[in-house]
Amino acid sequence: MPPFDDRFAAEFETLLRWRRDVRHFATTPIAEADMQDLLTLASLAPSVGHSQPWRWVRLRSSGLQEELAAHVDAENARAAQRYEGQEREALYRSLKLHGIAEAPEVLAVFCDEETQTGHGLGVGTMPEMRRYSCVAAIQTLWLAACLRGIGLGWVSILDPQVVRRMLDVPRHWSLIAVLCLGYPAQPSDTPELERRGWQGREPLTDRILER
Amino acid sequence: MPPFDDRFAAEFETLLRWRRDVRHFATTPIAEADMQDLLTLASLAPSVGHSQPWRWVRLRSSGLQEELAAHVDAENARAAQRYEGQEREALYRSLKLHGIAEAPEVLAVFCDEETQTGHGLGVGTMPEMRRYSCVAAIQTLWLAACLRGIGLGWVSILDPQVVRRMLDVPRHWSLIAVLCLGYPAQPSDTPELERRGWQGREPLTDRILER
Repeated sequence: MPPFDDRFAAEFETLLRWRRDVRHFATTPIAEADMQDLLTLASLAPSVGHSQPWRWVRLRSSGLQEELAAHVDAENARAAQRYEGQEREALYRSLKLHGIAEAPEVLAVFCDEETQTGHGLGVGTMPEMRRYSCVAAIQTLWLAACLRGIGLGWVSILDPQVVRRMLDVPRHWSLIAVLCLGYPAQPSDTPELERRGWQGREPLTDRILER
Repeated sequence: MPPFDDRFAAEFETLLRWRRDVRHFATTPIAEADMQDLLTLASLAPSVGHSQPWRWVRLRSSGLQEELAAHVDAENARAAQRYEGQEREALYRSLKLHGIAEAPEVLAVFCDEETQTGHGLGVGTMPEMRRYSCVAAIQTLWLAACLRGIGLGWVSILDPQVVRRMLDVPRHWSLIAVLCLGYPAQPSDTPELERRGWQGREPLTDRILER
């Protein structure tokens, strides 16, 4: 195993600290070579039984991008009703939760639930492992993007079935994520939800148990 | 955003290429300071609505570790039956798929499905986002471990409900993963399932679509 030195370890921590969910994008496009690099690096993620179940759908039509943005806006209006009458309703409504319309690149990530790659190893009792493999690929892509100065926002305020049909992909593909990519308008090492007073970081010690 | 140079980008790629699912561990223990570092870095992962839903259960009793290993062995014997009569049956049976009994550290990762942290933001239509956040934390921990020379193996051949009860955690915690950690006995940049002829890497181009 190649040795990684302390400098690399420190830079890796810096990368983790600056990886943000980005919803405000500059208009600068992402170079095609960078997009290819990101997808190549993401494919180095672990996958159950080496099944590589990730499927990347690149939105290349501005019409589809607008349609998707409109769907998320509608779902977000519905989500806002959850806070109706609560103190945080106004705060929720003031948050910008996605940049689909403006992002120079939008990727929809699907999981092929019926892939034969990997020959079913490791999914007998936990079929969700295929979906988890896709998430590991997304987090890998996210870090690879961040180290190039490229921001990513993961959008989940949507109906996965609607998006699957909108993008015309097979029924046995589950939507895992809609990802917006672009250069961040306001880079920060603090989560936007923390800066806006929605939710801060909680103590790690509350999250560790021993048995 | 701090600039990351080409050297860092190259080393990051090397890290991704050497991150393996490890099932063969040396007996060397992991320093407690390293375990704390890994859990701290994992907490820098993205989480939906900043909900930080991950719960880390450290196995500290060798009795529990043995019980868990026995459970996975039993589930694996069941899984092997799936290949009965097939050409790959003998190959499947010859694979070592977990190192729970020998790993110096075993972590069970759960998702708190009812956490109020994050105030429900982003999970209205996709409650699985909480589980996906835990997976992003696991992949982060995996990379942080690898850069310290520590290997990790993700075990999924188990019954999540049985493991939840074995570890006596709340009913609303979903088991995401059992992770074995330790120094790898045989570091490699090629997946063990590829080296053993189970499943190789497939072309990325088959996994990218445009819409």
